[in-house]
Amino acid sequence: MLCLQSESQAAWIQVAIDNPDAILSDHAHCEKKAAAFALAMVSRYPDRMRLVRDMIELAKEEIDHLALVVGILDDRGIALTADRPNPYIKALQDCVRSTEPDRLLDLLIVGAFIEARSCERFSLLAKHCPDESMRSLYASLLASEAGHYRAYTDIAREYMPDAVVRQRLAEFGAIEADIVRHLPNSPTMHG
Amino acid sequence: MLCLQSESQAAWIQVAIDNPDAILSDHAHCEKKAAAFALAMVSRYPDRMRLVRDMIELAKEEIDHLALVVGILDDRGIALTADRPNPYIKALQDCVRSTEPDRLLDLLIVGAFIEARSCERFSLLAKHCPDESMRSLYASLLASEAGHYRAYTDIAREYMPDAVVRQRLAEFGAIEADIVRHLPNSPTMHG
Repeated sequence: MLCLQSESQAAWIQVAIDNPDAILSDHAHCEKKAAAFALAMVSRYPDRMRLVRDMIELAKEEIDHLALVVGILDDRGIALTADRPNPYIKALQDCVRSTEPDRLLDLLIVGAFIEARSCERFSLLAKHCPDESMRSLYASLLASEAGHYRAYTDIAREYMPDAVVRQRLAEFGAIEADIVRHLPNSPTMHG
Repeated sequence: MLCLQSESQAAWIQVAIDNPDAILSDHAHCEKKAAAFALAMVSRYPDRMRLVRDMIELAKEEIDHLALVVGILDDRGIALTADRPNPYIKALQDCVRSTEPDRLLDLLIVGAFIEARSCERFSLLAKHCPDESMRSLYASLLASEAGHYRAYTDIAREYMPDAVVRQRLAEFGAIEADIVRHLPNSPTMHG
């Protein structure tokens, strides 16, 4: 699926299905972090208008989904849990190169992988979750994550040659698959 | 106006009118920072559902205005300038107390003052700017900043007694007026 070189483990699917509130709360924080990341990209690259406009659009969508997920939690009588460090995202960000334009490309590709992995995991939940209303929610979220994956890779192709983007997607694909293989299968979106 | 205890200096109005592109670009960064601040409040106080929902709503509106202002800059053929440190906001944040619930109250009041001062400055620009289309833009932005001021103070009153909120608004009013008196009147929203 998309740029991913591995599938999530069955053990993660089970723990995620068994803990829907934990998954929803963690996903709310993921949407919030994704919006903050998009705004940080505007700060880093203010003179690249295509990137600025697309990142603002992406931040809007992430916040719309944050509102949606928080509304569902509120309806279920559940408070948002505390935000916790995300070792999956940290491991990806540690591989971002520090000089430009490599840094720009890597940041966009990290954004793409986070969206792609969320998309893959929502597709698993949309298929296997026993609760029909949750399956519909997961299906709508997976479609949006797929759109965000494309947004990141489209911006990368705006500023870099296609072959360079492809090669780095393949390199990060191997890195990301290795990170996912070692995840603890905890009830979080990237657990 | 609102909680403010001073008016901006005439010298600032003139420099702002003379540099509309600089003001627009700086304001875009202000909207971006306001959205990021609202998201950070969600991270800090995830268990306060009223705050979480209102901060998400506020972040959405800030990003809508960021998109609006960046669109106007793009139409004028102007790139967003680099984001710079904002000494006005830094000076206010330095007065936030570190223990709870004082910290929560102070953060909400700092948010309120930033919105109130932006509102006051947009009202001056809406009155004095010679360009009619810019006057309309400034008028629409001032209305939204006033709404955001009320959002912050309403949340404060949800969690604290009214008398406590009033007293701290008065204390911060004196602090903020003193900060504004010493601003350099540069072409930024809080210059």
